[in-house]
Amino acid sequence: MPYPIIPGHVNVGEVEKINGNVPDINGNTIRSGDIVTFLDVNETCNNCWYCLVAKASTRCPHRKVYGITYSSKDPPHLLGGWAEKIYLKPNVKVLKIPKDLKPLSFMAGGCALPTAIHAIDRADINFCDTVAIQGCGPVGLWISILAKLCGALKTVVLGSPSLRLKKAKQLGADITIDIDQFNSEERVGEVKAFTEGRGADVTIEATGSPDSLPEGLEMTRDVGKYIIVGQYTDAGNVGINPHRHINRKHLEIRGVWGSDFSHLYRAVKFLSFFQKRYSLKEFITKIRNLDEAQKALEDVEKLRTVKTIITP
Amino acid sequence: MPYPIIPGHVNVGEVEKINGNVPDINGNTIRSGDIVTFLDVNETCNNCWYCLVAKASTRCPHRKVYGITYSSKDPPHLLGGWAEKIYLKPNVKVLKIPKDLKPLSFMAGGCALPTAIHAIDRADINFCDTVAIQGCGPVGLWISILAKLCGALKTVVLGSPSLRLKKAKQLGADITIDIDQFNSEERVGEVKAFTEGRGADVTIEATGSPDSLPEGLEMTRDVGKYIIVGQYTDAGNVGINPHRHINRKHLEIRGVWGSDFSHLYRAVKFLSFFQKRYSLKEFITKIRNLDEAQKALEDVEKLRTVKTIITP
Amino acid sequence: MPYPIIPGHVNVGEVEKINGNVPDINGNTIRSGDIVTFLDVNETCNNCWYCLVAKASTRCPHRKVYGITYSSKDPPHLLGGWAEKIYLKPNVKVLKIPKDLKPLSFMAGGCALPTAIHAIDRADINFCDTVAIQGCGPVGLWISILAKLCGALKTVVLGSPSLRLKKAKQLGADITIDIDQFNSEERVGEVKAFTEGRGADVTIEATGSPDSLPEGLEMTRDVGKYIIVGQYTDAGNVGINPHRHINRKHLEIRGVWGSDFSHLYRAVKFLSFFQKRYSLKEFITKIRNLDEAQKALEDVEKLRTVKTIITP
Amino acid sequence: MPYPIIPGHVNVGEVEKINGNVPDINGNTIRSGDIVTFLDVNETCNNCWYCLVAKASTRCPHRKVYGITYSSKDPPHLLGGWAEKIYLKPNVKVLKIPKDLKPLSFMAGGCALPTAIHAIDRADINFCDTVAIQGCGPVGLWISILAKLCGALKTVVLGSPSLRLKKAKQLGADITIDIDQFNSEERVGEVKAFTEGRGADVTIEATGSPDSLPEGLEMTRDVGKYIIVGQYTDAGNVGINPHRHINRKHLEIRGVWGSDFSHLYRAVKFLSFFQKRYSLKEFITKIRNLDEAQKALEDVEKLRTVKTIITP
Repeated sequence: MPYPIIPGHVNVGEVEKINGNVPDINGNTIRSGDIVTFLDVNETCNNCWYCLVAKASTRCPHRKVYGITYSSKDPPHLLGGWAEKIYLKPNVKVLKIPKDLKPLSFMAGGCALPTAIHAIDRADINFCDTVAIQGCGPVGLWISILAKLCGALKTVVLGSPSLRLKKAKQLGADITIDIDQFNSEERVGEVKAFTEGRGADVTIEATGSPDSLPEGLEMTRDVGKYIIVGQYTDAGNVGINPHRHINRKHLEIRGVWGSDFSHLYRAVKFLSFFQKRYSLKEFITKIRNLDEAQKALEDVEKLRTVKTIITP
Repeated sequence: MPYPIIPGHVNVGEVEKINGNVPDINGNTIRSGDIVTFLDVNETCNNCWYCLVAKASTRCPHRKVYGITYSSKDPPHLLGGWAEKIYLKPNVKVLKIPKDLKPLSFMAGGCALPTAIHAIDRADINFCDTVAIQGCGPVGLWISILAKLCGALKTVVLGSPSLRLKKAKQLGADITIDIDQFNSEERVGEVKAFTEGRGADVTIEATGSPDSLPEGLEMTRDVGKYIIVGQYTDAGNVGINPHRHINRKHLEIRGVWGSDFSHLYRAVKFLSFFQKRYSLKEFITKIRNLDEAQKALEDVEKLRTVKTIITP
Repeated sequence: MPYPIIPGHVNVGEVEKINGNVPDINGNTIRSGDIVTFLDVNETCNNCWYCLVAKASTRCPHRKVYGITYSSKDPPHLLGGWAEKIYLKPNVKVLKIPKDLKPLSFMAGGCALPTAIHAIDRADINFCDTVAIQGCGPVGLWISILAKLCGALKTVVLGSPSLRLKKAKQLGADITIDIDQFNSEERVGEVKAFTEGRGADVTIEATGSPDSLPEGLEMTRDVGKYIIVGQYTDAGNVGINPHRHINRKHLEIRGVWGSDFSHLYRAVKFLSFFQKRYSLKEFITKIRNLDEAQKALEDVEKLRTVKTIITP
Repeated sequence: MPYPIIPGHVNVGEVEKINGNVPDINGNTIRSGDIVTFLDVNETCNNCWYCLVAKASTRCPHRKVYGITYSSKDPPHLLGGWAEKIYLKPNVKVLKIPKDLKPLSFMAGGCALPTAIHAIDRADINFCDTVAIQGCGPVGLWISILAKLCGALKTVVLGSPSLRLKKAKQLGADITIDIDQFNSEERVGEVKAFTEGRGADVTIEATGSPDSLPEGLEMTRDVGKYIIVGQYTDAGNVGINPHRHINRKHLEIRGVWGSDFSHLYRAVKFLSFFQKRYSLKEFITKIRNLDEAQKALEDVEKLRTVKTIITP
């Protein structure tokens, strides 16, 4: 990361001023006063081999991310969300927040929801599958909700602390497994017991810990799928058994990197539609002012919250 | 394995005697005198969750394999191919060898070709892909041929010894990399140099060595595919990096277990059609009598041959 | 159909007598007194090109269907469900009805639910899609429910009469379009208006009328999918425009024929799980005795019911 | 079409003058003197629902096509290929022709090859499939070549006149069927006879005639695929039978519209690699000067050539 940065990559706010005619995806003009969000990823080139031949825009080498890979050293400086104002460069993909969706409700999705949508796309759940989710941070929780809307009959959420597992249960998980209470072998045993001895049809990793891999592979049934979406930073190597975990299992493993406009777009569409069904406020444990940002980060580090919102 | 066994799971021979009316897949009756092969896998139940719900017959827990998991202790004893006669149980799936395909030419495919066909099915090569193949035993060599018939523009074969790499070149590989001459980092570098710095679009592992995994993952491009077909026995664990090898790469990894009738059927169809183009004899380094079987196994262990045929 | 037949292909009942040890899919023995259903399709050969190579068992030429293609002329005669007893041939795939699922609740699914599950499998809905369903008979209604459990954000149901459309609304359809009130052009216009002018992402035909095709193709968006599951009998030809309906639209059209054990298995699993959420009784308009079967058929012909159950 | 236009949408030429730094897909600068081609489709917006959410750029409503939908009335006028010079607007996707690929060899691919590549992508041929191709114009001929490089074991080409069918045979088709010699029923019979009575695994339409549809559907096997790539202009409706052609067959039909940069890119890559194997000149029946363009069009109309090249 090109420090100093202004953190905050998923944001919502009011358009103060706009240069020229900027259309949204449906061809409507964005106007000042509109409440909008935008795709944090910018400068995807649509001109390189990854963009045009592999059609894998999340691996475009030119992409930059607001609040992460834009430095606040470079003019116009205001390139992150933990701020009172933010400057949107030309070609940033802007999306109007529908009138009936409160900005705070949108933030209940935050960056976790587009990531979860991408993971669900990759998971390709069959109707009546049982899905195991490793991790109960915001990404894991959203995946547990989406899995049931995308074909899963049953879900198992593994994680800690109990605050978050309770939330998972409220959001519809059939069983939760507290990783502070059960060791790895017991956890695999629980998932197998829940699936007539076979293991989950699809397991989705959303933990960030390399140790989740061998455990996740063990708890997935033969000819199942294992989706890896939580390994966003390099936390080192882990040992797996190629014969037992992959080849003999005839398993499919899919990594999930980044998200693109289609994920953000559907996050907004989904939140707008489903806010009547789910109380989106429940995702947000705390709202903090900008000058409490440090405390907010400490809360996250100590897993004291599900999600904290920073507001200027 | 339930020793003692009679080894030899892929076989071809003449029908000596047949009980009742046994139709082949096209409804034609098998008769004595016919030259036939059969699916080594038997007793796939078509009645369990794996067969009927997951449609993953290669993971049916009831399956038995001629020459591997049938013991010669059990009557009628003759359940493996290194023998003068073999007894085919009821429901064994029998396949006629077309008149124009010599039995020895069929054996050039042996068990390697159906396995390679299964791997190629899973690889789902896009037209103009570059495919890297780790391993140049019979499975790797067949994959290198099939890859070019299934969309690959270029292939790289990595392995040893040079005898087999030379064969790979003759069979159409664009470049070969001798693993005795280059270390892992150099090999990855070679593959990247051959692919404009990106890595192979698809890499297929056919080595049996767990160490192939991290190397194969490194040499595959972002958003590529890695197919694991060589890890048929448990040779231990290996360390991989979940962030760098899978998640950030947005990679897809697919295990390939066993083969079913569709693979054997196509192996015969393909050999019959392509024997004019490829000299199938080239796959067979040596033909040995049954009483030289021990020597044949030693040749394999020391990689002195591409393929040896046992004939009674 | 080989008349005379005993109609009734999807059935539930108590096992009176059983010959030998018959295991269900999980290896548990079926016993007399068990409440069971069974796959109406029998004699799928698992030995022909369609079964073994194409892996398309619903097109096996050897398959027979209880209550449809088994004649009651042939012993043991009792090969249809509108009867007090039914004879299950060897190899019929039997499935236990879980204790908590009432036989009548299972019949709420009937033959429509496995068919709907097959259609949903083929539809491959993306998360947040809008799905249009042509037809509001039992298959259409089940599809409208399943679509929302398999990724659809919104559904449109087109059909008549209003009794069934009301049911569709109760079951979660966002809008319904009465085909008796609007002509074809208006119906297409309504679907487009509901989808920002583009048309449905996925349209599923469940009507049986060839005229549905051009209309369904018109109401589907470019690069969308059109699933055809309702054309079970030959009701003649229909004109379509290859350029406008398929080629320029870059459309995908998928036929759906029959169902197999995996669909029946999931129907039971799903009903057992979801009966708390949906009142399954609502699917059943009437229960009639066997001697009222003629009246039941008249009700169906005149669309006076959603579903009628025949009970001995 | 916005007449007057300068026809000619696929072109190759020398860069005379270039404004600023224009990188190709690999980041290399395009320089004057380079021999280049370019994607005829321009102004795909990468900002609308079709581009960003459906990821279906060939249906972007903003796209324009050189030589087809750009009028020569509008400055800078030179927006088609049948001319001595052509003006490439900013953002046109330019592709260098490799040194070893002669411009004329590139034109052997022309617009037909990218279209054929797109069709082959959609066809998703399984290894050992038999592929039937309706049509033996340049698109059909290229498809017949590509099919065999992408998994097909056998190909059948249907069309006329005999000049083109002979070419198809030379290029590797196993059998050809002259539509001037056999009626529709006979043609279907021939394809079935060639495929053990089942029909082609995949049929690809490349004719432009709506009548091809019912015939193509008849000659495709149950659970097969039918790809429609030839219906580029509206030539009216055609009658099909939804029950027999789609539903009962459990068929999959896929339209193919336009092509994008990935298809052009692979066309160049493929031609460069395969020009040793195929004599690309054979595709070109005649080279004509610009002032003979009218004659060239007459040749095409009367099917007197496989392909004619216009050269300034």
